Amino acid sequence: MRILVLGGDGYLGWPTALHLSRRGHDVAVADNFCRRGYDFEMGVDSLVPIASLQRRVRVWEEVSSRRVEVFVGDLTDAEFVRHMTAGFAPEAVVHFAEQRSAPYSMIDRGHCVYTQVNNVVGTLNLLYAIAETDPAIHLVKLGTMGEYGTPNIDIEEGFIEITHKGRTDLLPYPKSPGSFYHLSKVHDSHNIAFACRIWGLRSTDLNQGVVYGQETDETTMHPELATRFDYDAVFGTVLNRFCVQAVVGHPLTVYGKGGQTRGMLDIRDTLACVELALLNPPAGGEYRVFNQFTESFSVAQMAAMVKDAYPGEVDIEHVVDPRVEKEEHYYRAAHTKLLDLGLVPHLLEPATIRSLLAVVDRHRARVDRSAIAPTVQWRQTASTLRAPSESRRGS
Amino acid sequence: MRILVLGGDGYLGWPTALHLSRRGHDVAVADNFCRRGYDFEMGVDSLVPIASLQRRVRVWEEVSSRRVEVFVGDLTDAEFVRHMTAGFAPEAVVHFAEQRSAPYSMIDRGHCVYTQVNNVVGTLNLLYAIAETDPAIHLVKLGTMGEYGTPNIDIEEGFIEITHKGRTDLLPYPKSPGSFYHLSKVHDSHNIAFACRIWGLRSTDLNQGVVYGQETDETTMHPELATRFDYDAVFGTVLNRFCVQAVVGHPLTVYGKGGQTRGMLDIRDTLACVELALLNPPAGGEYRVFNQFTESFSVAQMAAMVKDAYPGEVDIEHVVDPRVEKEEHYYRAAHTKLLDLGLVPHLLEPATIRSLLAVVDRHRARVDRSAIAPTVQWRQTASTLRAPSESRRGS
Repeated sequence: MRILVLGGDGYLGWPTALHLSRRGHDVAVADNFCRRGYDFEMGVDSLVPIASLQRRVRVWEEVSSRRVEVFVGDLTDAEFVRHMTAGFAPEAVVHFAEQRSAPYSMIDRGHCVYTQVNNVVGTLNLLYAIAETDPAIHLVKLGTMGEYGTPNIDIEEGFIEITHKGRTDLLPYPKSPGSFYHLSKVHDSHNIAFACRIWGLRSTDLNQGVVYGQETDETTMHPELATRFDYDAVFGTVLNRFCVQAVVGHPLTVYGKGGQTRGMLDIRDTLACVELALLNPPAGGEYRVFNQFTESFSVAQMAAMVKDAYPGEVDIEHVVDPRVEKEEHYYRAAHTKLLDLGLVPHLLEPATIRSLLAVVDRHRARVDRSAIAPTVQWRQTASTLRAPSESRRGS
Repeated sequence: MRILVLGGDGYLGWPTALHLSRRGHDVAVADNFCRRGYDFEMGVDSLVPIASLQRRVRVWEEVSSRRVEVFVGDLTDAEFVRHMTAGFAPEAVVHFAEQRSAPYSMIDRGHCVYTQVNNVVGTLNLLYAIAETDPAIHLVKLGTMGEYGTPNIDIEEGFIEITHKGRTDLLPYPKSPGSFYHLSKVHDSHNIAFACRIWGLRSTDLNQGVVYGQETDETTMHPELATRFDYDAVFGTVLNRFCVQAVVGHPLTVYGKGGQTRGMLDIRDTLACVELALLNPPAGGEYRVFNQFTESFSVAQMAAMVKDAYPGEVDIEHVVDPRVEKEEHYYRAAHTKLLDLGLVPHLLEPATIRSLLAVVDRHRARVDRSAIAPTVQWRQTASTLRAPSESRRGS
């Protein structure tokens, strides 16, 4: 299958591209390197060093004898999107190419507007390019479980059958997202569903949980194939951050009570889920939603699991929650559609956490402790980012 | 009350500003005149001639001895929004300042992206300006009944109580809008609800039906106070268009079967509803939704009503529906909240239609028949607009 991976230089886009390439697909990647730019803006860096995209692609060709074509450009540039889509003529597009940090979108007005315009316009340009190139192209779009928020009823996969005043309809599941970033994904979902309806496009919206892990079967084939690992307060995901805190002897910082519960998945399952969606496309005109996670944990549970798995001393500290969110709530979300397609999950076991801790330990000299404390406050319209640290301080 | 009316030069913004001014409020209006620009782009014009905003405001001061302050600027310019909001220090902002035509948003990619960016970014800038100036400012935002689409269950006012697998929650009503314009309003609704939640703002989202009529108690006080009247295929609303077609002897063009049913209201009720919302503000932190319409009619019913009210011969013609929509469907939508606040509706009676027909008859020499046929096709990604007519042709 010819597959175009957008955001192919990112944390998940890169290993997804490698995985699909190794599985025999013809893969191209596109990126505008904004993710590397955010690092400069924040004064932080991936814990694991990453090679340039051009270098990575060359190494992959040496290691696997497989070529990955590279497009450099921005999805908000409609001409670029149209030329790339028509030129590569993909059968499917996997779309990771969005600003994906909730705190980043909440820094201030400029970052909020940037996030929504970047994400919404990029996806609109892509929908038009697909409709004009070949409406049969399958769009696999990365959404987020955060689109749903934390309702007091079970979360279903994209749609819910509602019986109301004696009548019944299957309607889009109501959305209550918790940041301007999550809102941008809700906007995308509505736009994509509409494009499928009017132009007969086919799309799978992967409402993904929080991803943990850094190593995949392909990225471990050569050190320069590594994907990034973020632990800072703006781009780091919670389990990765806890592992860094454990290794450097910093208390695990739980926001608020820690009852916030989220769907989680292993990075290797992201790759498997994307491939399952690609190999089992929806019919023309169909917009479908898969909830892409394997287990749910509260933040406090995750902290306890890291504490248990780490051989040394670990403290857990509750800090004031910088977000506006329920700190204790009901959470039960369906996630059977990918299992039905054959997903065999990697569950979060002590061995998984220990392998994550080992990754962190190898790079502990690169940890910048000053990047970990939250700076972005949801209740304020503008937050001051930390001053750049004078030097990296390992422990 | 100090009230800032955004989009105060438009079809509804202008008469709303006059109405609030006459009722004793201190009113300022803001506009960037994009609506007049769309006329140039489409080669069409309001059936009723309209004076410049500066002229209108001077005439209003002569007629009423009341001043209306004018701000000229664009809501996507954050500095303008911030300075205006801080400078005028309103107690409430009425926000009409969005691109409001579904066909315009569906012309092509550029018009789609323009509509969503213009509407979403303008509203985001406004939310930030309110939060930073005074979170107590009441934002009265014009949404649309089109946000809901045409579900097979009753439409409620913004929220619906869902009982699912033995649990119950009150959640945002699921949205299935039918154009990129309607989608922009759905995006706004989600963004506004979130801003109320995190910053304690207060907002009323008026999900308005299709407005008909052109005369209000204030606009009829002087010919130069008139508001616009659109009948063209891109900006004209359906009842206004039918009245023009009847007067010029053109068949009333019903799209498809004509079973498309929509909530409707008289322009005078728009003014009354906005004032009721202003006089009865929500609590701080509350995001509420009023369905702002008074009656529901199908397109075919409206055509029949115009045919009945017009003294001459009227043909009704069914044309291929340029939109993607259900041509027959269930439609029942709640609209009690404004009635509970005291709204006394102007219902659509033969006398109402005859007064509309009289407005059209006075300006029949200005009708451009070539502007009426639909040009924008939902199923295409790009539509060719009609060539500008060589001259206006009355009948």
